[in-house]
Amino acid sequence: MGTRAASGPAVSALSAVLAGLDARLPGLERLYADLHRHPELSFAETRTAAALAARLGADGYEVHTGIGGTGVLGVLRTGPGPTVLLRADIDALPVEEKTGLPYASTARGVDAEGREVPVMHACGHDMHATWLSGAAALLAEHRSRWSGTLLVVFQPGEESGGGARAMIDDGLFDVAGPPDVVLGQHVCPGPAGWVLTRAGVLMAATDALRVTLHGRGGHGSRPETTVDPVVLAASVVLRLQTIVSREVAAGDSAVVTVGSLHAGTTHNVIPDHATLDVNIRTFEPAVRERVLAAVDRIVRGEARAAGAPAEPEITELATYGVTRNDEAATTALTAAFDAYFPAGRVAEAPLVTGSEDFGEFGCAAGVPSVFWLVGGLPEREVLDAIAGGRFESDVPSNHSPLFAPVLHPTLRTGVETLVVAALHRLGSPGVG
Amino acid sequence: MGTRAASGPAVSALSAVLAGLDARLPGLERLYADLHRHPELSFAETRTAAALAARLGADGYEVHTGIGGTGVLGVLRTGPGPTVLLRADIDALPVEEKTGLPYASTARGVDAEGREVPVMHACGHDMHATWLSGAAALLAEHRSRWSGTLLVVFQPGEESGGGARAMIDDGLFDVAGPPDVVLGQHVCPGPAGWVLTRAGVLMAATDALRVTLHGRGGHGSRPETTVDPVVLAASVVLRLQTIVSREVAAGDSAVVTVGSLHAGTTHNVIPDHATLDVNIRTFEPAVRERVLAAVDRIVRGEARAAGAPAEPEITELATYGVTRNDEAATTALTAAFDAYFPAGRVAEAPLVTGSEDFGEFGCAAGVPSVFWLVGGLPEREVLDAIAGGRFESDVPSNHSPLFAPVLHPTLRTGVETLVVAALHRLGSPGVG
Amino acid sequence: MGTRAASGPAVSALSAVLAGLDARLPGLERLYADLHRHPELSFAETRTAAALAARLGADGYEVHTGIGGTGVLGVLRTGPGPTVLLRADIDALPVEEKTGLPYASTARGVDAEGREVPVMHACGHDMHATWLSGAAALLAEHRSRWSGTLLVVFQPGEESGGGARAMIDDGLFDVAGPPDVVLGQHVCPGPAGWVLTRAGVLMAATDALRVTLHGRGGHGSRPETTVDPVVLAASVVLRLQTIVSREVAAGDSAVVTVGSLHAGTTHNVIPDHATLDVNIRTFEPAVRERVLAAVDRIVRGEARAAGAPAEPEITELATYGVTRNDEAATTALTAAFDAYFPAGRVAEAPLVTGSEDFGEFGCAAGVPSVFWLVGGLPEREVLDAIAGGRFESDVPSNHSPLFAPVLHPTLRTGVETLVVAALHRLGSPGVG
Amino acid sequence: MGTRAASGPAVSALSAVLAGLDARLPGLERLYADLHRHPELSFAETRTAAALAARLGADGYEVHTGIGGTGVLGVLRTGPGPTVLLRADIDALPVEEKTGLPYASTARGVDAEGREVPVMHACGHDMHATWLSGAAALLAEHRSRWSGTLLVVFQPGEESGGGARAMIDDGLFDVAGPPDVVLGQHVCPGPAGWVLTRAGVLMAATDALRVTLHGRGGHGSRPETTVDPVVLAASVVLRLQTIVSREVAAGDSAVVTVGSLHAGTTHNVIPDHATLDVNIRTFEPAVRERVLAAVDRIVRGEARAAGAPAEPEITELATYGVTRNDEAATTALTAAFDAYFPAGRVAEAPLVTGSEDFGEFGCAAGVPSVFWLVGGLPEREVLDAIAGGRFESDVPSNHSPLFAPVLHPTLRTGVETLVVAALHRLGSPGVG
Repeated sequence: MGTRAASGPAVSALSAVLAGLDARLPGLERLYADLHRHPELSFAETRTAAALAARLGADGYEVHTGIGGTGVLGVLRTGPGPTVLLRADIDALPVEEKTGLPYASTARGVDAEGREVPVMHACGHDMHATWLSGAAALLAEHRSRWSGTLLVVFQPGEESGGGARAMIDDGLFDVAGPPDVVLGQHVCPGPAGWVLTRAGVLMAATDALRVTLHGRGGHGSRPETTVDPVVLAASVVLRLQTIVSREVAAGDSAVVTVGSLHAGTTHNVIPDHATLDVNIRTFEPAVRERVLAAVDRIVRGEARAAGAPAEPEITELATYGVTRNDEAATTALTAAFDAYFPAGRVAEAPLVTGSEDFGEFGCAAGVPSVFWLVGGLPEREVLDAIAGGRFESDVPSNHSPLFAPVLHPTLRTGVETLVVAALHRLGSPGVG
Repeated sequence: MGTRAASGPAVSALSAVLAGLDARLPGLERLYADLHRHPELSFAETRTAAALAARLGADGYEVHTGIGGTGVLGVLRTGPGPTVLLRADIDALPVEEKTGLPYASTARGVDAEGREVPVMHACGHDMHATWLSGAAALLAEHRSRWSGTLLVVFQPGEESGGGARAMIDDGLFDVAGPPDVVLGQHVCPGPAGWVLTRAGVLMAATDALRVTLHGRGGHGSRPETTVDPVVLAASVVLRLQTIVSREVAAGDSAVVTVGSLHAGTTHNVIPDHATLDVNIRTFEPAVRERVLAAVDRIVRGEARAAGAPAEPEITELATYGVTRNDEAATTALTAAFDAYFPAGRVAEAPLVTGSEDFGEFGCAAGVPSVFWLVGGLPEREVLDAIAGGRFESDVPSNHSPLFAPVLHPTLRTGVETLVVAALHRLGSPGVG
Repeated sequence: MGTRAASGPAVSALSAVLAGLDARLPGLERLYADLHRHPELSFAETRTAAALAARLGADGYEVHTGIGGTGVLGVLRTGPGPTVLLRADIDALPVEEKTGLPYASTARGVDAEGREVPVMHACGHDMHATWLSGAAALLAEHRSRWSGTLLVVFQPGEESGGGARAMIDDGLFDVAGPPDVVLGQHVCPGPAGWVLTRAGVLMAATDALRVTLHGRGGHGSRPETTVDPVVLAASVVLRLQTIVSREVAAGDSAVVTVGSLHAGTTHNVIPDHATLDVNIRTFEPAVRERVLAAVDRIVRGEARAAGAPAEPEITELATYGVTRNDEAATTALTAAFDAYFPAGRVAEAPLVTGSEDFGEFGCAAGVPSVFWLVGGLPEREVLDAIAGGRFESDVPSNHSPLFAPVLHPTLRTGVETLVVAALHRLGSPGVG
Repeated sequence: MGTRAASGPAVSALSAVLAGLDARLPGLERLYADLHRHPELSFAETRTAAALAARLGADGYEVHTGIGGTGVLGVLRTGPGPTVLLRADIDALPVEEKTGLPYASTARGVDAEGREVPVMHACGHDMHATWLSGAAALLAEHRSRWSGTLLVVFQPGEESGGGARAMIDDGLFDVAGPPDVVLGQHVCPGPAGWVLTRAGVLMAATDALRVTLHGRGGHGSRPETTVDPVVLAASVVLRLQTIVSREVAAGDSAVVTVGSLHAGTTHNVIPDHATLDVNIRTFEPAVRERVLAAVDRIVRGEARAAGAPAEPEITELATYGVTRNDEAATTALTAAFDAYFPAGRVAEAPLVTGSEDFGEFGCAAGVPSVFWLVGGLPEREVLDAIAGGRFESDVPSNHSPLFAPVLHPTLRTGVETLVVAALHRLGSPGVG
């Protein structure tokens, strides 16, 4: 296989490059705890970006900051050869941390509506950033062992959507040219030390909608003079459940979540509107279309049932396509993972309902991309859960206020995967 | 009738005292617009209290501020005779004004949870304060025409509950002794120029509850790892509707309103709890008890149905008893109103679902109290609505973001009622 | 008072007429048990009508049967004087009796849809028929003591609606001319031995609607090929609760009940429609109009939200106006009751949410009518409940499968009321 | 492959056996129309069984009737060799036919609750019986071309569940010994002329539950004296939707259908209970367990929220395991289908949410079984639907009142599949 032959020499560099990982783990652990303690919301990742940029600079990268707002690009050219883009996302979520960790966050931020909210790295982007910082350092330290161009991308605004697009639109690919391949990874609620991926569709498409339901406000004691938007919102939430339960075939997959519902300011005033933020996951265009049409139909039908004085408004907050891994590139990368990791640690991923804007880099550049998952939960508990018939354990997973991936071997594995993946695509010195 | 005879001389002072009202109306209108433009939330009425206290001082009252937080007491003694307490409430609501008035509020405040919220005089307390300020000035100007002690009370924290109690507990009645009668009024969605009251129960009891529903948070794409509190909250809201529709007899009255419902921070995170603020109005203790028990039963039953990981919490935000007008005092006052106002302008009030902590002053002092309503909507529109079979017109009413009582004759009528009511109880010079 | 003077002589006949009641009670008790054991649905009261007609004939009445289907009219003329119509309804309900009484019903009938259903006198019409049969016998036995014409009407089809109208349309008033007054009564969940009435509106208007919701049927395992009418029906039922809870003012009264909901035939087939029978009670035209409009709006809005393939159908099953007692006639009758019954046993009735087509007789004849209630529950338990703050006791009431009025003194009281009421209107011999 | 070699000679008989199919199609069409016009509910298939038994007898089978109630077994022994069981189910459903076909059903039956209900072959069992009757005749006519024992089984009570078990328990396998393989088929909403199957799990497990919700009955106008089971049932139905929408992972599959909901008899009586028949489909034991637990939790939690006077009752109406095709037997049969049918007509089936008790025959006998699907919808419409991104077309599918498979080529294909499958397993004369 051509790819394999070409990367052969680079792969031989693996043991040398990764030999220094053990010594760097304590430093990475400190970085991780620092990022975790100081989470920042989408497009507000100034402290995070500065810290990561500083490390890239110290490692010898040419550093570009402020791309797409708060994005960071590190470039390292070691000679002729392919250009490989490694991407990590760096933003956190408006979740109030309840892990009790010594480095738990107490941070607050301001959300898109100007509300002050708690902030937490509840999706592991702190881990992603730490992994990529660690891999970037090792690859820089051993730059003599590979030839080509490495693009290290710390992307803002993945949770909100728009971060990948913002960096691309802001000229990301103008700095050092477009990449030949785009690589990225996510910590997942699989067993720590495991790597999971699949060719083709890996992750769901997301549509995030804001639904504003209009009522007529008034005194809490005189509902007959009002149209109560709280009751309307409750009806909409319950009715939205029927989309998945009644309108999506058992053999298809969809998720419809109302993640946020807000109405009113106090007990004795009936407010004049309610706001729902809805998140939709699908894998098939026909299912997506049906679900979106059903949301629209339900929201409008319920507003009519309520006698709402104005039509509801439905606006798009974010939209991501499915994350689709290039078939050939994924096959080759899986072989590289298989060759490096112990037997049984590289597995086929199930379809993941999570979504990503990672795919936009490959799409925009017109090159293959591969995304994979790195387990972050205690291996024993996850395997017990699987033996009990469930992929899921009871360990809190991404977006939970209790989400706390185990540091070991998670930290190590995610650096290894990036180095394996990068070297597998980069050329050998004097060859590439 | 004794009361009538006794008050005869004082009543004869009426025309003299009220003769100056016309000249004062422009100033009162400016005061009203100023208060309206600068609303302040419960117990944060510092600017309002200062303005009202300053006017009392200028009118010759002995002024006491900071009673019960931001409460104001003005005392005027003119000789022997009864002590009459006139009360107005002065706080505003977390409502975003949408009246488009030239003096509309754009104010913001901080609510009990520390959230920044819009603030509006959506319940007419700016009108109440203006009325009382106007009446206090007239009664002070003509102090030679009556004998007794006038207590002018500007009460904070009526909307939140607790304001009357706070002033009493803070020694209100120690300053000039307890009153012999307590009088107060509220602007209502009746026709402007009308005065409505009734002996016995006039206004409902209120119980305000905060319900916290616990779920288990997680990723918006993986609801199966969570217990979704948004869905639970929606079920609770719909099920609470059945209390009034199924558990309260048609001949009884109750209102159960969820005025505020908040859950979550963003679309792709399932939050771990939801918060509902519930407002309950009843007139009968047995109905109140049944409704409260039903709320508790529904909230707990729904949490079980949801598999909630923790019991819901139900805490009391505020509680008011019914507002009960003293029979004899109300009969006498109605006669005084009848004697002053044109025929047809004084009517029996219906039972009002609104609530008040006004009653606490009379209860604490062990003296009669009378509360009445002054219409604030355009007379023609209200009468047309009544002719069409409804007490309610379509004009926005109290607590609506569109609430805007007509200034004329509303401003005048509310000053007249206070002066009539006060003089009717105060003694004549050399007699009282 | 004219009425009183005129009825004086007739009233003096009271003790003579009622002297025979004691001896007749065992026979009336047997009649009641027999009717109770053999209930018949609306317009199928053939056995009941035959038994009552036979007794009227034996008592000397001119008997007309088959009026309006299964209605019975007995006529007794004793001389010049007023014509008094006494009416009892005689039909039963599709309820499965669970009283465990020795004379409990095990009867079955066929409802309007051709379904076989259990049948029970769950509303006491067996008591009404027994009362009127007893009073008719006593008044016939003592026909020399009054002068005038007595019309004894056993009306079918009150529960279904349409029975009064059917008798009138079938020439009821052609037989012996129209009455001068129409009198009727109902057993109620008040204390046995008590009589309750009120001038003006006594009972609610009823609108009964059938709502047919159309879905699209299919296999229970493939809801995505269907529009599930069971889910749609559930949404409609919950949303209908909001009419009373949100759209009817606390000071107004309305009841919206879905008494019957049917959809589907088996677990693994999603049916293509659901049927709801809805019963609405109101006292005010404006409230009635708003409630009916809200039902229509909700049903159609929910069907849209469901994506129903066809508009819902809403048809009227029955409609009754309010039962309104003539002011003067009620005042006079109340005086007669007061004069006869021990102090405290005649009380003002509350507004009753039950409905009646009794009022149609008086309307059609253009004469006054009076309707009253006779308590049927154990006095002690009801009074204890009232003392506890509730008009309602826990004793099962009308339409419950456990409804079982106490026989004593209920049987006696209801005969007494009819005799008092009739004699109070009839003339004296040689006078009338 | 051993199976293939062994069946080689028998397969060579195929063209001879199927040569007579064309001539028999008109007769099969008449049989189908007759069965369709006269559907019978589960375990009441007396007319159907008699007709099918008569044809078997005429074809020379040894016929056994009344096995497991209304089951029929035909036995044909032609010499040494394997015993092959071919099974068709013959019962119909309580669905009111709305196809408008000339041979549409107007039949009525009595369901398990004694209700009279419409009956329709809405699941194609009339087609299954016709297919098997046709294949049995052809195989009997050409009995000299195969060696072994053929068991032709017409099974009652598949829709209700229990039919396969009843036949087995009633000694099905005692008549002619157990089979070596069990074969069966179902008409499906795929394209007519197509055959679909898959090794391993093909069809879902079903659990059918009856949920009885207890309220307290009473007068429709006085809900406050009742606990309304209609409102409770509505809440349960909506809440059950959340099992699939919130508790089943997007990568898992489950269906929860309330196929039937009944409460009450008339509009003005609040009934004392409601009955829901719930159908649950799952493929994985862990998912099944979670769904069943959730149903229990929701039903009980909602009853508590309602203040129900008694615990709900949940009873099992039927339970089926997944339908699992033997791997080796399915591979071999698929090869036989591939060899016979035109290219593209034999496809891999998706996971089917339908359920079957077919699997019980193979389980009880301890032998392999294979089940497959035969398309019954117009090929062009189905393929257009698939091209539009959906497996489903808009053509009404199984259990719909509009279900009407196209007769051609559906009738032919289902006879061919049975003959191919039987001969592929049976021996050659003088060899088997």
